[in-house]
Formats: sequence, C-alpha cells, structure tokens
Amino acid sequence: MSFIEVSSGSHFPLQNLPYGIFSTNDNAQPRIGVAIGTTILDLSAVKHLFDGPHLNQNQNVFEEATLNRFMSLGKPAWKEARQRLQELLSDSCTTLKDNDELRKKAFVEQNEAKMHLPAQIGDYTDFYCSKEHAMNVGTMFRGKDNALNPNWLHLPVGYHGRASSIVISGTDIRRPNGQTCPDESKPPTFGNCKLLDFELEMACFIGGPGNQQGEPITMDTADEYMFGVVIMNDWSARDIQKWEYVPLGPFNAKNFGTTLSPWVVTMDALESSLCDGPTQDPKPLSYLTRQEPSTFDIDLQVALKPNNSSKEYIICKSNLKYVYWSLKQMLVHHTVTGCNLRPGDLFATGTISGSTPESYGSMLELSWRGTKPLELDENLTRKFIEDGDTITMTGFYQGDGFKIGFGQCTGKIIPALPLPK
Amino acid sequence: MSFIEVSSGSHFPLQNLPYGIFSTNDNAQPRIGVAIGTTILDLSAVKHLFDGPHLNQNQNVFEEATLNRFMSLGKPAWKEARQRLQELLSDSCTTLKDNDELRKKAFVEQNEAKMHLPAQIGDYTDFYCSKEHAMNVGTMFRGKDNALNPNWLHLPVGYHGRASSIVISGTDIRRPNGQTCPDESKPPTFGNCKLLDFELEMACFIGGPGNQQGEPITMDTADEYMFGVVIMNDWSARDIQKWEYVPLGPFNAKNFGTTLSPWVVTMDALESSLCDGPTQDPKPLSYLTRQEPSTFDIDLQVALKPNNSSKEYIICKSNLKYVYWSLKQMLVHHTVTGCNLRPGDLFATGTISGSTPESYGSMLELSWRGTKPLELDENLTRKFIEDGDTITMTGFYQGDGFKIGFGQCTGKIIPALPLPK
Ligand SMILES: [Ca+2]
Ligand SMILES: [Ca+2]
Ligand SMILES: [Mg+2]
Ligand SMILES: [Mg+2]
Ligand code: NI
Repeated sequence: MSFIEVSSGSHFPLQNLPYGIFSTNDNAQPRIGVAIGTTILDLSAVKHLFDGPHLNQNQNVFEEATLNRFMSLGKPAWKEARQRLQELLSDSCTTLKDNDELRKKAFVEQNEAKMHLPAQIGDYTDFYCSKEHAMNVGTMFRGKDNALNPNWLHLPVGYHGRASSIVISGTDIRRPNGQTCPDESKPPTFGNCKLLDFELEMACFIGGPGNQQGEPITMDTADEYMFGVVIMNDWSARDIQKWEYVPLGPFNAKNFGTTLSPWVVTMDALESSLCDGPTQDPKPLSYLTRQEPSTFDIDLQVALKPNNSSKEYIICKSNLKYVYWSLKQMLVHHTVTGCNLRPGDLFATGTISGSTPESYGSMLELSWRGTKPLELDENLTRKFIEDGDTITMTGFYQGDGFKIGFGQCTGKIIPALPLPK
Repeated sequence: MSFIEVSSGSHFPLQNLPYGIFSTNDNAQPRIGVAIGTTILDLSAVKHLFDGPHLNQNQNVFEEATLNRFMSLGKPAWKEARQRLQELLSDSCTTLKDNDELRKKAFVEQNEAKMHLPAQIGDYTDFYCSKEHAMNVGTMFRGKDNALNPNWLHLPVGYHGRASSIVISGTDIRRPNGQTCPDESKPPTFGNCKLLDFELEMACFIGGPGNQQGEPITMDTADEYMFGVVIMNDWSARDIQKWEYVPLGPFNAKNFGTTLSPWVVTMDALESSLCDGPTQDPKPLSYLTRQEPSTFDIDLQVALKPNNSSKEYIICKSNLKYVYWSLKQMLVHHTVTGCNLRPGDLFATGTISGSTPESYGSMLELSWRGTKPLELDENLTRKFIEDGDTITMTGFYQGDGFKIGFGQCTGKIIPALPLPK
C-alpha cells in the first residue's frame, strides 16, 4: 500500500505508476510526473532519490521536459526506477512519507496540472491490425468474399503517419475542410468533411537507444525497445480518405490530428495483464513467430458526449486482446527491412474492433457506413461525429483487487473554418 | 565576383550560396556552412558579422548543429542573410577578404569536410507528382487506359514517409531483407530484396515558424514556408512494395533509407530559374490555383557506377520542371485539412520522369519492370540495382554564365544481412 490515498476504482494504484509530462500554474515548465491516486509525484523534485546503479549517473533525465531521455536509458533503468518509485511511495518507507517539506514540493494534484505530450515523437506509425476492423471495412468496400487483402494475414499492415499533429488529450480538434468526390462521375468538390470519425487505438512508445539503420530488431529482443502504452484516437475524415487513399494510403484524412492519453503505462506495469492473442492461421513467417502470452487484456471503452448535452453515451466496448498481430510483431515487422526506431517514436495498433457490433472501434463500423444510425437516446442518433461532440476513450486492466488504468483520451470537435470564397 | 575563386562550371558561385551542416577532423562539432566554389564559409566563425535588423538579435542560430532555428526565422531573415553573405564574399568588401586571421578560421575546404543532415527532420512527406512517372507505373500495373487513378489530376497525391532513416549523401545503404510474394497463388517468402531501385526526386525544407494546427496555408503565402531545396534518392524495394502496399501505401519498401544531397539551395537562389509548369487540365480546385511561373528549371541527372567498375554511366536525364504539381501546390494541399508544418520538415516531389525513356527517374521505368534491361556497356546490363552499385544524382540550373547547382546525392548499395536460419 501507498501512503498516498488510492481509491479502490483508481486507474493509478501503486501497481501502475505511469509516466507523464505536466506543468502547473505556479510552474509553467513541463516536467516528468508519475500518477498515483489523484496526485502526481513530480520527479524533478525527487530526482536525487534515484540512487541505484543505472540511475545515479542519470538523474538529470528527470529534469527533462519530455520522457525521451529516460526512455532512451533502456529496460534495466526503467525497472530500477519503477522499483524505487514503489519503494518511495509505499507506506513502509519513510524517506518521502515523513519529509513534509519534500512532500509539499513533490506532489501536485492531477486536477491542478496541465498535461503535455509525453515525448517528442520523431516518427509515428499506424498499423491496421484488428482482423475484425479490417474485415468490416473490407466488407463495406469490397464485399465479404474479398474483405481481407491477400497480404493481411501474412504481415501487420501499417503506414507512416504524421507526427506533428499528434496532440494531448483535451485538445480541441477542428473539423477539416478538404477535397472529396462523392460522385466519381463528376468532378471533386472542396468543403467541410461530412464523415468525421474516431478510431479507438492503443499506441506504444519506443524506448532504449534504438536500433541502427540496416539492423532489424528480432522477436527475441523486441521487448527491450518497448517503453509503454497509451490510448490513441486516430481522428479520420472518411470522405476525404475515400477519394485520396488509392494508391499511397490515407494522407489529409488523417494528418489533421491524433489524440493521445497523457499517462504512459509501462510494459512492466502491464505484465500482470499479459494474455494469449488470437490464433494466427496461417502461421506467420519465422521472423514474426510469436510466443504466448503475446498481448494484454485491456478493456477499452468509447463514450460520446453530444454537443449541448451533459450526458455521455457509451458507444463502444472493446479490448486490446482482440488485435490479431501483437505489439512485438508490429515492432519487428516495422524494422525488418532495416528501418531504425528512436526513443520516443510511436506506433499504434489500428482501430481495435471486436467481433460484436458493440465492440466496433469507429463510427464507420458502428453506423455501418451511416446506413444504421447509432441510437444514443430517444430522438438522438449519430452516423458520424457532429460539431461540439466530445469523444472520450478510457481503458484499464482489471487485476485482482486493482486496476492498471490509462486515464482518458478525450477530444471535442469544433466547427470547420469558413470556406474561402 | 567573389574574392574566393569559383571555377566556371562550379555548382556554387556567389549567386547560389546554399546552406549545409559540416564538421572537420579538427572540430567534430557539426556546424552551419555556406558553399562557395570548392570551399565552405563557416558561419559559426563569422556570426558576429550578421548585424542587420533581422539577424543581429539572432546570431546564435549560426552556432546550431542544424539549420532548424535559422529556418524558423522566416523569409526576411533569410533574405538579409543572403544579402550579407553576398556582400561579405564579394571582391569589393574588405571585412572578410582582408582579415587574414578571420579568413583562416572561417574557410574550410569542401574536400576536408564531412557533411551531415541539414536539419532535424520532424516529418517527411513524399508526393507522387510527375504525371509521366504515374502514367508509366500505372501502365505497367493496370494498363494504359487505367494508368492514372481518378484522383491524380485533381490533387497532388502524397503519403507520409519515415524521417528517421533519412541519411546524408555518401551513406551506404544496405539491401533490405523482407517479405515478398512473387506468386500470389503461393504463400509469401522472406528473403533479400531482388528488385532494388532508386527514385530521382527533389525535396523542399519547410521554414518560417510553421502554421498552427487547424489553419491551412494558402497559395498566397506558401512561399513564406519554403526555405530551400535538395536532391533526394527515395530508395525503393519494388518486390516488397508490390506485396505490402495495398491498401495503406508503401511501408517497409521505403523506410530502410532515403538519401539527401547536403547543400540546401534556397528559394531565393532559385528565383532566376523560375519557369512555367506543365499545363494543368482539368483546372485544379480554387484552393490549388497556381500562378505562373510556378516551377524551376533544374536539369537533373542520374549516374550508375557498377560494382567493381571505375566508370560511371549516365542512365537518366530529367528536369524538375516536368513535375505536374508545383511545390507550392504540394505544400498547400498538405495543410488543407489543417496539418501543421514545422521548420525542418521535408516534402519531396516523387520520382521525376519526363516523357522520353532517357528521362525516366527509376530503374522500374528505365528497364520497364525488368523487361528491357538497360545496356550500360558491352556485356554490362542492369534491370535493377546490384550490390556494390553506386547511384549518384546531380542537378543544376544553367543561368547566363553561371550554374545554381545542388552538388551530389550519392549512395552505394551494400549486400543484405545474411538471412536468419
Ligand atoms: Ca488508424
Ligand atoms: Ca518516392
Ligand atoms: Mg490521425
Ligand atoms: Mg525512402
Ligand atoms: Ni515523422
């Protein structure tokens, strides 16, 4: 137990200890914190307490404005930091508990903190690894028999995304204007995106020193490069996507904004949630051979709070474990031709859909391309996202008497800019 | 004229003055230089001489190890720097010319310098804007009648690329291993890339403070965000690309390496090379309306030096002006849904092919998918790139008695890693 009060349903007990970047009204400098209960332990205030062999020469990583340098230290340092934090925050350790002056300096209430992106993200990659999502989208656009592309069961399909427009939870997202072609027998038109969507995803931050260009990472060592996980909303403009994406993939339809939850839950914290992944048939090529348990049992949920409503409606319940390809398989495939990963880089799973309609991770699937409007309430339906709607994603692993939670990934859609005359 | 000797065929006369990042044996610190003739002016040694209104408070940008901060200052500062450099390097200005001590400190021979990437590239985007290239590739894969996708004439098709694996000219590139499926009635296999290719491209660095997320850049102001241009080789693994690219675009086939020429030729230096672009029919939507002159007359050339040969064979002669969409149109389209660009970001044109077979900008086109091996010499042919081959791209604008040149973009292919057992 911690000397910090942690309520029973909290996402942030002593078993979790996720890292984030925060600032406060008193101190606008973004700095590294660890969430515990409803408070934050400011690591810049307690850096001198990290005196183990991997961190005693590296305490300055806790004074940075991003997690990149801490991420780059690698797994032994992350384990040492976690162990030390669990010790410092425990009831039985007096170092912090009985030092009133230090406690006053070192703890900040979460509701008084402003959160920032956890890392400077050099490159961001988005995969497409839920079979159910790929099947749903494929069925809508190509029919059930050709739903999965021939490569899909053989490799984790992915593409490079836009790092600059990744924002932290709570940032408003402007509805984009862009080029669409609703009727391909006519010329395209320019206007507001009419089919604005979310995508429920999880994303993994790269840690360790990174691999050298030309030197792929193997399944054996992939875990040394995985620092931790967040929830991600890959906002998507479906009408723009449909017109632009052949043959080089989505571009403007995705690059206007991507939202991350602020607390990076470490792979060490997720260990207790390890579980088996979906059966993979055909067996992947040997460079992608998976060991079980390969994935994590993270319950995920999406809520929509309509414009001018105080009520939130849960529109999706899914789970990370539904995803066909494991995070390690994604990472290994990413580097197989020699691509170098750097600490702070991010890769995401793709939309996480399950097999039942309630578990579909996008409006595209929930409303089946707008053909089955989602009934939120009497007289309140949604095909896609409307102006003023807020999408909030949450997730946690339910342990035996505790949760390993991710907090919230939330964002509100604000109206598009007026069209130029 | 400059007091520094500039030979008549030089890429780097007083009219050019491109920026790059270099280090030397004596001083391993990467720093900003300007190419003039066969030497480099070290801006960190002469920063105090930039005393104009836009730079006198910003001289420290010339002490950085990348161009990002100088790029971020914007067009008036770039113009002031250029003007001051032309003055300082001219025959008629004594400040530098007659200061022997400073001259000794400030000039470094290019052949004694090691070049580095010009900027920390936050995001890299690759377009697909040569109509001839798109037609060639489309004809090979879908037949002449369906060669161009329906969107191609309406928007500059582009995709996000991998920033981490961009390297400077001269860096060896390892042939990738990866997943291919030569016969789609059989399962895919893992092995060496057999169809390794180059793509002749040019790429533009973003400058200025960048646009806010959600606020597109318009054609009117696009030039405020364009700092300068380099030559780029987008190495491509055609067999890997073919298997992976549907539906989200190329991934492993491109992310193993991309090579840049080291000297960033500024938009100001390119002004004299402005020329009209290809006729655009149908007329683009109004947000993409182009003013002439819209492009630049840059002669480009690709040479292949075969493994164990001392001879270089010119295999392609092309020109930036063949590209259908202008750099401004690419930039504006990139941001139309609100994507934010940051100083140091890079976007590339896509393979630059002309209308004649000699002008095709990739082996895929030059050997027509391997069906017409390129004859380099008696008994020496190439379908794709072989181990030990060096590809060197060069380019320049031929002005009236001077060249605005780009130097070289070169890279050698080294053999793939052994396959895991
Ligand atoms: Ca996605
Ligand atoms: Ca390309
Ligand atoms: Mg996105
Ligand atoms: Mg490349
Ligand atoms: Ni990037």
